[in-house]
Amino acid sequence: MSDAISPLAPKSYPEMPAVGGVRFATAAAGIKYADRTDVLLAVFDAPAEVAGVFTRSRCPSAPVEWCRANLASGKARALMVNSGNANAFTGKKGAASTALSAELAATAVGCAPEEVYLASTGVIGEPLDAEKFRGVVDDLAGAANADAGRWLEAGKAIMTTDTFPKVATRRVDLGGVTVTLNGIAKGAGMIAPDMATMLSFLFTDAPIAAPVLQALLADAVGQSFNAITVDGDTSTSDTVLLFATGTAGGDPVREVADPRLEPFKQALAELSRELAHMVVKDGEGARKFVEVTVTGAESDASAKRIAFSIANSPLVKTAVAGEDANWGRVVMAVGKAGEPADRDRLAIWFGDVRVAVEGERDPDYSEEAATAVMRGETIPVRVDLGLGEGTATVWTCDLTKEYVTINGDYRS
Amino acid sequence: MSDAISPLAPKSYPEMPAVGGVRFATAAAGIKYADRTDVLLAVFDAPAEVAGVFTRSRCPSAPVEWCRANLASGKARALMVNSGNANAFTGKKGAASTALSAELAATAVGCAPEEVYLASTGVIGEPLDAEKFRGVVDDLAGAANADAGRWLEAGKAIMTTDTFPKVATRRVDLGGVTVTLNGIAKGAGMIAPDMATMLSFLFTDAPIAAPVLQALLADAVGQSFNAITVDGDTSTSDTVLLFATGTAGGDPVREVADPRLEPFKQALAELSRELAHMVVKDGEGARKFVEVTVTGAESDASAKRIAFSIANSPLVKTAVAGEDANWGRVVMAVGKAGEPADRDRLAIWFGDVRVAVEGERDPDYSEEAATAVMRGETIPVRVDLGLGEGTATVWTCDLTKEYVTINGDYRS
Repeated sequence: MSDAISPLAPKSYPEMPAVGGVRFATAAAGIKYADRTDVLLAVFDAPAEVAGVFTRSRCPSAPVEWCRANLASGKARALMVNSGNANAFTGKKGAASTALSAELAATAVGCAPEEVYLASTGVIGEPLDAEKFRGVVDDLAGAANADAGRWLEAGKAIMTTDTFPKVATRRVDLGGVTVTLNGIAKGAGMIAPDMATMLSFLFTDAPIAAPVLQALLADAVGQSFNAITVDGDTSTSDTVLLFATGTAGGDPVREVADPRLEPFKQALAELSRELAHMVVKDGEGARKFVEVTVTGAESDASAKRIAFSIANSPLVKTAVAGEDANWGRVVMAVGKAGEPADRDRLAIWFGDVRVAVEGERDPDYSEEAATAVMRGETIPVRVDLGLGEGTATVWTCDLTKEYVTINGDYRS
Repeated sequence: MSDAISPLAPKSYPEMPAVGGVRFATAAAGIKYADRTDVLLAVFDAPAEVAGVFTRSRCPSAPVEWCRANLASGKARALMVNSGNANAFTGKKGAASTALSAELAATAVGCAPEEVYLASTGVIGEPLDAEKFRGVVDDLAGAANADAGRWLEAGKAIMTTDTFPKVATRRVDLGGVTVTLNGIAKGAGMIAPDMATMLSFLFTDAPIAAPVLQALLADAVGQSFNAITVDGDTSTSDTVLLFATGTAGGDPVREVADPRLEPFKQALAELSRELAHMVVKDGEGARKFVEVTVTGAESDASAKRIAFSIANSPLVKTAVAGEDANWGRVVMAVGKAGEPADRDRLAIWFGDVRVAVEGERDPDYSEEAATAVMRGETIPVRVDLGLGEGTATVWTCDLTKEYVTINGDYRS
């Protein structure tokens, strides 16, 4: 947790309504630091439907493996998250640690260990001593309640290098019943598709069956958590879980094609994007929020790869930090993406200012107008390839000296 | 050109012998700045055999297109290089500019424009006014000579953000005749495979035919200029050209399989690697030289992709800058490469210190010993995947605040 709050932090937080059937508590278990809130327990009064999307790292953390193994059942009674230690690259000790963590939580909550979902974030490669949860988790289970204030507290409990907590909420109609969708997230570095040390937990009281939840979540993640990058580095621990308690009532949704789902789908997409944007806005050292849109690509997938080539380029990101309308570096990043592109059809905009067209500087180019865009807090960059119909938008932040400072002595 | 010379700069430069048949001159043409040497002309007394390897950018510069088009002839009478403007993303103006540049040089030297090779480095997207070469190039052709001192001068003329000139030399036997191989290079940022704003020009008096030269160069580049990265950003202008004048005498080499070539092949590989290492050591803001070796991969190609995933990771590079033996970030970078890897077979070394084995921290891990390695100027990082026989080595530098400073206000 850094001292200075990101200048891109939200000015205020929404009032988070309760989600029926979910209770929270947080505690300081001394995972890495003493007296710092580092454990979050969410308890479901009845088994909740659950869906999950995880890192594509070939070296996933032990909790990611734990969750993946249990997701098939589609049922959750508890979620336990810790910061301070990622329990990643911890070998057999890692699996033993998740097993003990789940067992302790299960005993405290009164369920099977397989109904406990786990996530850990923090240092990689140091064994996580799950004994630290013993006792603590019983207190947590006893203290867990549904107070609205608990959401922000939950968001804070999972922070690492984050400078502000990330919460968002939506209310939406589902077949005549108003349902609530709340989410929390953490992440500030090691953020890239797919995904980052990005943890996000979404909760709804909507009555939606696990397989449907899974399809909805996979869809929402593609345009949100998997469309952001801070540094192009992908964590071993990325986890997004969506829990549905069903306490709002109404006929359960059992089919993805159910037309009642439309407003919920849209709300889930929006909420995911809002949380993902907050992650980028809390990017380590970030001072600018950059939205990169690619149009006219041969396909959406090609557009996304080009957009990420731009969004991950250190030269583009340092230019943004320097408020320099250096569109030559955007050309470079398009060129290096390895995707179909025709230099002489390229056009580039910063905000509404077209800086390049047909493979050269716009004849009406105004450095002043372009620089004015760069001085803003949000920098829209658009590239049109002039080849096809493929489009994509991804989000990133600038690369500042503070990023280097934060990451040059994170462990010390 | 930055004020402070990289701490990784060579302590001294080799004496560069003359290469028969090549003469040099440099001048200040005022391409971007007044009174700064920014043009290099190399003149070949007789047509030289020539080979080239270029950027794989989909948005190549006009000079890259010019060279590619003329390479088929395999003959060169002159090379003209300018810094200050890359003549990249300059549309039709760019092609007109290369045509005029070649014409002016051809008239001065007395050859066909197609025998003139061109390279430009500097700002992207601004038209290059080739009229600035008029007159200047005639003076250059008149002044060109073979003085040994001209090599370092030539190296200096092509610098942009480089803090030191890059030259290297080898003498080697070719079928009983001693031949000379000299090279110069520039590059400090926008350095990545394949390749970077990396220009390198190699000259030999060996009698080797163009098709053979091309095969040798392609081979050497893979293990040198295409195995380095500063920032993962690939330039529009990367060019490596190899010229052979044949003045050393001896029977011309017309076949790649000619056994006389072995020592020359090795010398070319070494010289290319030496120059490529200098580029990394002059990486913008660099204070540490990092050698990443991956062994035990499923294939050499897979090993190289994993090695680059490590070498390009901002989190790995900032950890190196902070002298932090943060091997968890190496695990992260292996995981995100998307290549076959088995977490529980991974082993990682910093220098000779094994920090991780079988998917967890080495039982004998000593933070002190690992930190001692990180305090050095050269940081060897090795990862063994335990899967197969694939190996690769790539080179990079650390990511410091100075990189951000240099690139945050390059254009201003």
